[in-house]
Amino acid sequence: MGLRPSSSSSSSSSSRAGLLIIWWCCLIQYSNMALGSKTRHFKWEVEYMYWSPDCVEHVVMGINGQFPGPTIRARAGDTVHVELTNKLPTEGVVIHWHGIRQQGTPWADGTASISQCVINPGETFLYRFKVDKAGTYFYHGHYGMQRSAGLYGSLIVDVAEGAKEPFHYDGEFNLLLSDWWHQSAHEQELGLSSKPMRWPGEPQSLLMNGRGQYNCSLAAHFTNSSSTQCKFNGTEQCAPEILRVMPKKTYRLRLASTTALASLNLAIGNHKMVVVEADGNYVQPFVVEDMDIYSGESYSVLLTTDQDPSQNYWVSISVRGRKPQTPQGLTILHYLHHPKTTLIPTRPPPVAPLWNNYTHSKLFTTKILALMGTPRPPTTTHRRIALLNTQNYIDGYTKWAINNLSLVLPSTPYLGALKYSINNAFDGEKPPENFPMDYNVMNPATNQNSSYGSGVYMLDFNTTVDVILQNANALAENTSEIHPWHLHGHDFWVLGYGEGRFSDQKENNFNFRNPPFRNTAVIFPYGWTALRFVADNPGAWAFHCHIEPHLHMGMGVVFAEGVHLVGKVPHEALTCGLTGKMFMGGNGKP
Amino acid sequence: MGLRPSSSSSSSSSSRAGLLIIWWCCLIQYSNMALGSKTRHFKWEVEYMYWSPDCVEHVVMGINGQFPGPTIRARAGDTVHVELTNKLPTEGVVIHWHGIRQQGTPWADGTASISQCVINPGETFLYRFKVDKAGTYFYHGHYGMQRSAGLYGSLIVDVAEGAKEPFHYDGEFNLLLSDWWHQSAHEQELGLSSKPMRWPGEPQSLLMNGRGQYNCSLAAHFTNSSSTQCKFNGTEQCAPEILRVMPKKTYRLRLASTTALASLNLAIGNHKMVVVEADGNYVQPFVVEDMDIYSGESYSVLLTTDQDPSQNYWVSISVRGRKPQTPQGLTILHYLHHPKTTLIPTRPPPVAPLWNNYTHSKLFTTKILALMGTPRPPTTTHRRIALLNTQNYIDGYTKWAINNLSLVLPSTPYLGALKYSINNAFDGEKPPENFPMDYNVMNPATNQNSSYGSGVYMLDFNTTVDVILQNANALAENTSEIHPWHLHGHDFWVLGYGEGRFSDQKENNFNFRNPPFRNTAVIFPYGWTALRFVADNPGAWAFHCHIEPHLHMGMGVVFAEGVHLVGKVPHEALTCGLTGKMFMGGNGKP
Repeated sequence: MGLRPSSSSSSSSSSRAGLLIIWWCCLIQYSNMALGSKTRHFKWEVEYMYWSPDCVEHVVMGINGQFPGPTIRARAGDTVHVELTNKLPTEGVVIHWHGIRQQGTPWADGTASISQCVINPGETFLYRFKVDKAGTYFYHGHYGMQRSAGLYGSLIVDVAEGAKEPFHYDGEFNLLLSDWWHQSAHEQELGLSSKPMRWPGEPQSLLMNGRGQYNCSLAAHFTNSSSTQCKFNGTEQCAPEILRVMPKKTYRLRLASTTALASLNLAIGNHKMVVVEADGNYVQPFVVEDMDIYSGESYSVLLTTDQDPSQNYWVSISVRGRKPQTPQGLTILHYLHHPKTTLIPTRPPPVAPLWNNYTHSKLFTTKILALMGTPRPPTTTHRRIALLNTQNYIDGYTKWAINNLSLVLPSTPYLGALKYSINNAFDGEKPPENFPMDYNVMNPATNQNSSYGSGVYMLDFNTTVDVILQNANALAENTSEIHPWHLHGHDFWVLGYGEGRFSDQKENNFNFRNPPFRNTAVIFPYGWTALRFVADNPGAWAFHCHIEPHLHMGMGVVFAEGVHLVGKVPHEALTCGLTGKMFMGGNGKP
Repeated sequence: MGLRPSSSSSSSSSSRAGLLIIWWCCLIQYSNMALGSKTRHFKWEVEYMYWSPDCVEHVVMGINGQFPGPTIRARAGDTVHVELTNKLPTEGVVIHWHGIRQQGTPWADGTASISQCVINPGETFLYRFKVDKAGTYFYHGHYGMQRSAGLYGSLIVDVAEGAKEPFHYDGEFNLLLSDWWHQSAHEQELGLSSKPMRWPGEPQSLLMNGRGQYNCSLAAHFTNSSSTQCKFNGTEQCAPEILRVMPKKTYRLRLASTTALASLNLAIGNHKMVVVEADGNYVQPFVVEDMDIYSGESYSVLLTTDQDPSQNYWVSISVRGRKPQTPQGLTILHYLHHPKTTLIPTRPPPVAPLWNNYTHSKLFTTKILALMGTPRPPTTTHRRIALLNTQNYIDGYTKWAINNLSLVLPSTPYLGALKYSINNAFDGEKPPENFPMDYNVMNPATNQNSSYGSGVYMLDFNTTVDVILQNANALAENTSEIHPWHLHGHDFWVLGYGEGRFSDQKENNFNFRNPPFRNTAVIFPYGWTALRFVADNPGAWAFHCHIEPHLHMGMGVVFAEGVHLVGKVPHEALTCGLTGKMFMGGNGKP
């Protein structure tokens, strides 16, 4: 049995509702709308379950029997309460609320070893935080490689009651993008930590809302591979979520990528998209035929259904930046009320730009600019930290390092260690602000050795900090990878991108007028990316490559600021390591 | 390349050293020899690693890069210090010292949820305990199904300096027996906890000292299966550990079974064995041609090398009590100093008794009697608890239950909850002392529903307790399984075994003269086993079926006695659940 349209009645006429940008409400998104704000309660259980994300049954980490986990929907200004119970048999768990700044609740950021101790099996932890800003967000595990295991879901924040978005749309869809391996996350984790390293390889499948196809293809008809045509009745866990649209309407597509590894390019056959939001901030609308989305990023695009309604169209995601060994992820845009015998489009899926066509990627990325009304960056900075990422060996183990230190997370959460001035919880030495002047980013390092580090970049409260992310050649010659870096607890301005090694003169080209305000930014191969943010959020915050194996291999740093201003940290967040010992000893405060 | 003897020089003559039982020293084993006792220090790291236990590479849980973990060797009266660091990425861990009574150190028993909180990743816990009694023991994980994952090793306690064993031997070998699956323990665990249950099935291989063969057979030549002959150079992780012996000597074979599931029968081609120890207690020596060993049991047997030294001989282990789908585990007894071209014996491996020949099993088990000098049981009891085991459903999940309660372990360790009188840490209701008079153990239960329970059998300190383990029909008709039950913190006397339902009249046949003193006892299908022990060890103690999936499915109970006499429990053992909260709150003692 093939895929069939749910409806084949004739189209209803509808007035063309084009893209309408409403400028006057932009500022509203940045103010908390206390009026009418609610507390949204969720009771979740994290557990392993059998699931077939790509039609092949494996073990996934789910929430309340669902994969991906339930979608949280709230309004700006609401408080979200998630009572999270760990039902895993032997593993700890935490959940990070990606893009939520956690102002006043740094202990709820859900990062193991940084904001809290993990929740042990059988125990419950209450995440309570305010979602202050409308936008498209998501959540995911932030311990070991539990994101790769499937622990993720969507978090959508609507504008506050009475507020308006700066654009119009008639309906919306939410697509959470991910990649999926048949090897368990446990085994991937072991492989990465082994000597020699065993790289988990490219994902078997790409998923949209947790759905992909491995043993068959929706587009088998169009490929010259041996793949067979998928046959779904629609109830399968791996059946694609069809986007059913009315003609001549405008839809908002909320896109977020929680991939473990893959950078993606998304396209919709025959349709253009207007990008309007990135990482929970509005952007100057711009039109694209396809768009890149890196792990950790989220976007909203507007899609106007102005094409031939008697046809269906592909929605595709394809791997970028790595030689693809994974088939496109596909679903279908289906125009309702037009007679059709099948849901499968009559033309082949969009052809993705060449995986290593970085010009194409940069063109897209540099188009992203803040919408008027977005907070603008301070014009000067108090401190500039240059972070060179290199691939290295430590005792024969393959690692990523930042300024020659590969992050190892300590057993005591930084937040607690800093709040209670526990000195031996992590490396006391300050991590370096820079890297050697003579380091040649275009070649493999001459000395490929590195060290482990767990030091913290202590930021003066309320100061402005620049970070220059500097890419370099990896261990192999002629190899430099894409790294999307994600900052917890803050949005940053992306002041500029460039090729080769950054130098202070490049500063002259920084964009201070409308730099995009984001929480994730990519560094391109052999390039640099300049970020600025204000250290105004008391807490300890991870800043890391959002590729999960890379973080696991040490590609991250920790920032901390104003920890003396942090209010009471729930003791449940500090039961481990030296904070646990301190409390258990009963010898110290509090 | 085939297996080759390590030496083929001619035999040296040696005077025949037969079995010599030295009676006079029996009592010495029960007294602590403070004189010359030492503290044995070990620093261990538990981690996952790639390993090929049966020549197929999989992930195993190892210690210090070894599988099985390092052997602990100590003398009676010594103190063992194991500084255990958890290097697993996201899982907690504990280690149980199987057979060690932990007098005065109940917090060191290494049972998650009972004696301690699990050790979290990155943290270190110090196990410190006295090994008061010479014997053959082992250790293993006691959290989730980490024993199935490979977390185990040997613990050998020699007699105290100057003391003598009640038998003579010229050399010894240590064989730790286990079973091995190619499916990960995580996935087995999920299958068991799923609705409907997915049973992990029979093991792929049987291992001796962590070595077995899956894709080949040492005895391929003799089987009519398609298996190929193993070719080893001896350095392979799965190459058998050859027992190299001199002719006309007596060897002690220390045997312990840490199988997850399999009951085993061990035989040595052409050789008889004299059983002299069971679970760390001497037994009346008796001669066998083959012997059963259930999970949780340990034995010493004496083997005299009185056979043709120009031949080699098989050492085999075979599955009993379940229809075998696992090849025999094999290694070789190799007589040194006799010219041989191959290590492979010229005759086929021993044929195991039929898997369901329970008469054979019972014959062996009932031969096990205490050696003179072993402590004798009190002749009367203060309390008799009858424990009926049944297979049941709870909300459609398949479980094992004891008196209709299926054990679920709470998140607060019993030891801490009891010591600090935390009432809501586990079911306050006392679990039942008995089961319905009219329960027909020969048929599937009429009502197959059961409930979860976490109550404790509170035992009055220093009283004598009888436990009648009553087997029954499982869910399927004509099915009743073997269950080896293991008691923590104590040895018990096995007063008797019987068929069908126990009744008080059966007591007349109890053996009070020389009942075996053990920590593990089997119940045969449709039978009962009567145990007696003295509740003289302050603490909280697990008593459970040692088949790991059965325990995981609820087949166990918890005993506690004299907890008010327990000294200071290290706070690190109580960082979780309600004890953790109590300490963290800083509101209570201590």
